[in-house]
Amino acid sequence: MPRLYNFSAGPSILPVPVLEQARDELMDYKGSGMSVMEMSHRSKVYDEIIVHTEEMFHKVMNIPDDYKVLFLQGGATMQFAMVPMNLLAGNGIADYTLTGTFSTNAYKEAQKFEGKTINVAGSTKDVNFVRIPQQNDLTLDAKADYFHMCQNNTIVGSRWNYLPDTGSVPIVSDMSSCILSEPVDVSKYGLIYAGAQKNIAPAGLTVVIIKKDLLHDPLPGTPTMLNYKTMAEKDSMYNTPPTYSIYMAMLVLEWIEKTGGLEQRKKFNQEKAGILYDYLDSSSFYSTAVEKDYRSMMNVTFKTPNEDLDAKFVKESAQNNMSNLKGHRSVGGLRASIYNAMPKEGVQHLVDFMEKFAKENG
Amino acid sequence: MPRLYNFSAGPSILPVPVLEQARDELMDYKGSGMSVMEMSHRSKVYDEIIVHTEEMFHKVMNIPDDYKVLFLQGGATMQFAMVPMNLLAGNGIADYTLTGTFSTNAYKEAQKFEGKTINVAGSTKDVNFVRIPQQNDLTLDAKADYFHMCQNNTIVGSRWNYLPDTGSVPIVSDMSSCILSEPVDVSKYGLIYAGAQKNIAPAGLTVVIIKKDLLHDPLPGTPTMLNYKTMAEKDSMYNTPPTYSIYMAMLVLEWIEKTGGLEQRKKFNQEKAGILYDYLDSSSFYSTAVEKDYRSMMNVTFKTPNEDLDAKFVKESAQNNMSNLKGHRSVGGLRASIYNAMPKEGVQHLVDFMEKFAKENG
Repeated sequence: MPRLYNFSAGPSILPVPVLEQARDELMDYKGSGMSVMEMSHRSKVYDEIIVHTEEMFHKVMNIPDDYKVLFLQGGATMQFAMVPMNLLAGNGIADYTLTGTFSTNAYKEAQKFEGKTINVAGSTKDVNFVRIPQQNDLTLDAKADYFHMCQNNTIVGSRWNYLPDTGSVPIVSDMSSCILSEPVDVSKYGLIYAGAQKNIAPAGLTVVIIKKDLLHDPLPGTPTMLNYKTMAEKDSMYNTPPTYSIYMAMLVLEWIEKTGGLEQRKKFNQEKAGILYDYLDSSSFYSTAVEKDYRSMMNVTFKTPNEDLDAKFVKESAQNNMSNLKGHRSVGGLRASIYNAMPKEGVQHLVDFMEKFAKENG
Repeated sequence: MPRLYNFSAGPSILPVPVLEQARDELMDYKGSGMSVMEMSHRSKVYDEIIVHTEEMFHKVMNIPDDYKVLFLQGGATMQFAMVPMNLLAGNGIADYTLTGTFSTNAYKEAQKFEGKTINVAGSTKDVNFVRIPQQNDLTLDAKADYFHMCQNNTIVGSRWNYLPDTGSVPIVSDMSSCILSEPVDVSKYGLIYAGAQKNIAPAGLTVVIIKKDLLHDPLPGTPTMLNYKTMAEKDSMYNTPPTYSIYMAMLVLEWIEKTGGLEQRKKFNQEKAGILYDYLDSSSFYSTAVEKDYRSMMNVTFKTPNEDLDAKFVKESAQNNMSNLKGHRSVGGLRASIYNAMPKEGVQHLVDFMEKFAKENG
């Protein structure tokens, strides 16, 4: 079968050269006599992989030396608990912004910890999350242990177009669906976390980038596996890490570096999103709800005039070499996730199909 | 490079036909136009994989219908916390047996939960864990929410040679290093857990087999991701599961079924362990500490007359197409982990080398 243009929101498309290298090395990694999947995490040959992957994160994302990269498990949802368990050990106060489903879930999870103060610092729920709160809309607590935001909202298709000024309160950002899509100034964050299954690697790996001065004892009763300090002290090897997903992350980071780094990724991603949004703006058939200033570069959401045509679109796109264009079940409509590995040709193929579909059904 | 005989305790050797199939399907899974690594966990094509994997566990392990198989993350160490978080919501009492490093770690982790009673029901620490407590040695609490044991002790190389009678108290067993090595009567257990990276799949997947009547609300403050009930209700898809490791587990289970199932695995494993233990018993050069009745079929520990020769053994075995024969750093000596995927030829190759080494250094 020809390779599909896979618009899945995650797990999602991976770069072809990365998959080819994984295939070619699958039975024998660089003459080691075994697959990466079979390597003891404490062996010399695997140690080189995990150390190099950490170095590559620092290099590609330009992460300062006073930050530690952790390789964890459980996805962003596990971080929704791990962040408060570790960071609320200060004043027991946190500011959350609600800009979509996952940021709301993060807020709800933080409320599980008794005797803590979990504030809503800003929300655009009243407008169905079609925009992001502006600085003036935020109610900030100067005593908060951290400020939480979801940088890119995968389901609604929006993103923060600025980084709030939170004074001395560390910013914690869920970058699951936008990490590695463009350069970010890591020094402006206290903690960045991301499930790997969009722009980093296959599912099963969660990357946390934490400022070292936030590594302190967590709340009492925190499981050892959910303790950032322990995981940092053990270089993510308190127990067996998800070794193969980490190797895949290394291949993806090497591919990003080889193809021009994050500046080049941003250029490609702007171009791809531009093609799609320009077409949407010119069309009277399709509509997109998110306000222009807050449109995601990774997840483009849109609708046809009605639900029946949305369903027809999903069906016919699948017959035209595309997959996973159905919107999230909670919001309906259509969604094209165009992560790093989606080629420009895929986006052009989609727009060509959209034009044809609009003509036939408009 | 020729394929190494990889005696790693985990992550560890995988069956060659499984690796070959993974390689052949890596770029395009059965004409789907994408890699399994790229599939949305909510897509039809992936759903078939995860549903089939769960079915294969039921089939291969003969798991009764009143048990649920969960695909989780974080390894056995995460289960050390997840078990008490979920099961102590009853009387708040648990019985633990200490038979090695990991069972002791499980006991310590359970002590983190305030106001609960965590008993030592039995321990062989005073004899360095060279045997397992017998039924008469156990001090059981009839009100305990569960009884915890580690079925096979990877580091010391011992195993339970019987299943204790705990009355109506459910048995929770860590089977990380012996699952799928022989048939077990699942109906005798309340909960079985296992990190995948020994006999199931690459690292990053944790399998939990839980009796459905134990699925109840956990302790207050338990993170959503650590709630068995939620994960069971969502068929392990509350968020993105470790999709590729689950696929690899499916391939391994199919390989086990094709090669005769668990009865045949037991026969092979007994034969392999027998070759090694018979030689050890006949040797005056090597010694093994674990008492005969409790010897592990998966992890065979032994020593040469001194530490220098142990180190020499590790070095020379590596020059003879074998890897990872060094004992765990906490106990020293030597260890050959001979999981399902280790062929009989590998064990024979090791014994031939051991004979030669003993002659040269005895």
